[in-house]
Amino acid sequence: MTTNALPSGSSMRQAISLITLGVSDYERATAFYAALGWSPALEIEQTAFFQANGVVLVLWSREKLAADSGIADDGSRWSGIMLAHNVTSRHEVDELIERARRSGATITREPAETFYGGYAGVFRDPDGHAWEIAHNPGFGLTPEGSVVLPPAAS
Amino acid sequence: MTTNALPSGSSMRQAISLITLGVSDYERATAFYAALGWSPALEIEQTAFFQANGVVLVLWSREKLAADSGIADDGSRWSGIMLAHNVTSRHEVDELIERARRSGATITREPAETFYGGYAGVFRDPDGHAWEIAHNPGFGLTPEGSVVLPPAAS
Repeated sequence: MTTNALPSGSSMRQAISLITLGVSDYERATAFYAALGWSPALEIEQTAFFQANGVVLVLWSREKLAADSGIADDGSRWSGIMLAHNVTSRHEVDELIERARRSGATITREPAETFYGGYAGVFRDPDGHAWEIAHNPGFGLTPEGSVVLPPAAS
Repeated sequence: MTTNALPSGSSMRQAISLITLGVSDYERATAFYAALGWSPALEIEQTAFFQANGVVLVLWSREKLAADSGIADDGSRWSGIMLAHNVTSRHEVDELIERARRSGATITREPAETFYGGYAGVFRDPDGHAWEIAHNPGFGLTPEGSVVLPPAAS
């Protein structure tokens, strides 16, 4: 499917500026991401901002995030969102899943072949947020860890 | 908090390659994002890939995503993740929230002043995924829509 261009005045650019993971225990969450190797560029009032490739990952109180966003929070653990961290080899998938396991993550999918011809494992962080660590030989990967898709055929 | 550098061999780079939103009705989901102005670079077997700023947004069957990831899915609507789309003016916040409303989103926070001195609204897409549309004068924004944080003081 291709979609026609919409009036640029009010259409949404294809951009995601920040991804906020609501957390129930801020110290536990920041310790977990530190153990994985993430270091915040900024911490303000129990809010950690991590610079990633184009996007910023934020850890913030889930309770405050829900209240600030007008969302009724029933404490659910998974609403169908997966963050993927792609790497350049199967070996790296194994290494990072092991590191996540040692850091307190739950591994929900041990590293294995994928249906698309790659190799991936999945872990959930202490708040239940899901990350896939994947090697997909069909996708190019920039040095910053970004997947760049070929332009759509028109 | 600053964290010491960890051995590079097994530490995780600060990168998010893809964000997959699990959807219960693929046609409804792609129609919604098309109405917002998003156009996929690639569609394969009811999987839509959108190129964004550094990250790729993917729409895929929630059922398949859960099964593929080893995650028990209880059908929850919010697990504490917020995607933010930052813009350069308050007017754009108003415009995009209106566009989302017309496109079938539920507005959970009408555009209003934020505690950090900005202006933002929040909508949920037809599957309940939450997006904040925000103007934050305290953050720089690249032409691609990326927030770039100042380097951490060390």
